Amino acid sequence: MTLRGRRKGEAVPQGVVVRLPIYFRYLTELESAGVERISSAQLGEALDFTAAQIRSDLSYFGSFGQQGYGYNVSELLHQVKQILGLQRVYSMVLVGAGNLGKAIGSYEGFRKRGFDIKAVFDIDPHLIGNHHAGCVIRSLDELPKYLEENQVDIGIIATPKEAGQSICDLFVQGGVPSIWNFSPTHLNTPDEVIVEDMHLTDSLLRLAFRMNERG
Amino acid sequence: MTLRGRRKGEAVPQGVVVRLPIYFRYLTELESAGVERISSAQLGEALDFTAAQIRSDLSYFGSFGQQGYGYNVSELLHQVKQILGLQRVYSMVLVGAGNLGKAIGSYEGFRKRGFDIKAVFDIDPHLIGNHHAGCVIRSLDELPKYLEENQVDIGIIATPKEAGQSICDLFVQGGVPSIWNFSPTHLNTPDEVIVEDMHLTDSLLRLAFRMNERG
Repeated sequence: MTLRGRRKGEAVPQGVVVRLPIYFRYLTELESAGVERISSAQLGEALDFTAAQIRSDLSYFGSFGQQGYGYNVSELLHQVKQILGLQRVYSMVLVGAGNLGKAIGSYEGFRKRGFDIKAVFDIDPHLIGNHHAGCVIRSLDELPKYLEENQVDIGIIATPKEAGQSICDLFVQGGVPSIWNFSPTHLNTPDEVIVEDMHLTDSLLRLAFRMNERG
Repeated sequence: MTLRGRRKGEAVPQGVVVRLPIYFRYLTELESAGVERISSAQLGEALDFTAAQIRSDLSYFGSFGQQGYGYNVSELLHQVKQILGLQRVYSMVLVGAGNLGKAIGSYEGFRKRGFDIKAVFDIDPHLIGNHHAGCVIRSLDELPKYLEENQVDIGIIATPKEAGQSICDLFVQGGVPSIWNFSPTHLNTPDEVIVEDMHLTDSLLRLAFRMNERG
């Protein structure tokens, strides 16, 4: 097996970043099922990508495959985990304990991949004091102090649109480096803050577009 | 103003499709705020795209801009709505009335854009008979009959991973053309069925990747 380094000086294209979690998910399933090796053709078949695309994607991170053998599933999964940064634990804070916040907090599979919700905040006095995601729901007023005292990797915004930017500002002021944004608004942040948007309506609009494109 | 037709025979790149809802959202805000026109540079500034990218994106659907004037906000919004297929109403069915299904069903802004949840199904006897999203929650057993009797544009899957494929199969057998999938699994469907995935974990993994990429 040859193991090249990551292509030097090349930014990883957005399309590759989008596909990485898909590889991770499928390889995890294969490993659980006891599958030891897989070819790029088989991977492509299962995931609706071409074998060429898979070879190209994985070449951004080093060449793991071997001619005539394919990929060793466990090794490839290990590499994909490293690339995704899953060798460490991330501490997260959730703001918004409404329906969406509840769904996020109780979503299967975050914690076991190293993403831990450490605290939950809301402004609703009916929710404050309740338990969610293993945490007591705190008043939003306490967020700045919490951020002073605790290191937080990811701030989750699960509030209505109107509150999105002000929560974002609190996270930025508190030194949170990354924001996972479910509020349906475009957040303005300094360049060094990473924002990953999860806009339900955008996804639904893309679906509508594709339906109309087909006619 | 020149108005060219859509670039002939060119498939719209995924990147453009991803950005269309962002244009829609921002133009809607501008129109509500009474803004009448905007330049590609201003659009770019607000959305963190380059002016060249914006002009290129919009050229896929005809050229709406005018040199030295920019875009008329209402006209551009109207065109983007047409492109996205928002001139019509979509009937949707939701399977899964747990936390995630509740969040989807009560998410702001779907209905006013023409996306109507017409029926909700679950397998949990404690949920069946309750109300959600203006519907009585029905037993999943009733789904095939419902699909026989009602035209459904979009099937929403908000179930755990294990149930995802079987719900998908029920939708496909019932002639539902499009599936909005929140269950964290890759769905196998015939080519003619459109699937839009909304995988929370994938989004979180992309965020982790970008954090690690920055170092």
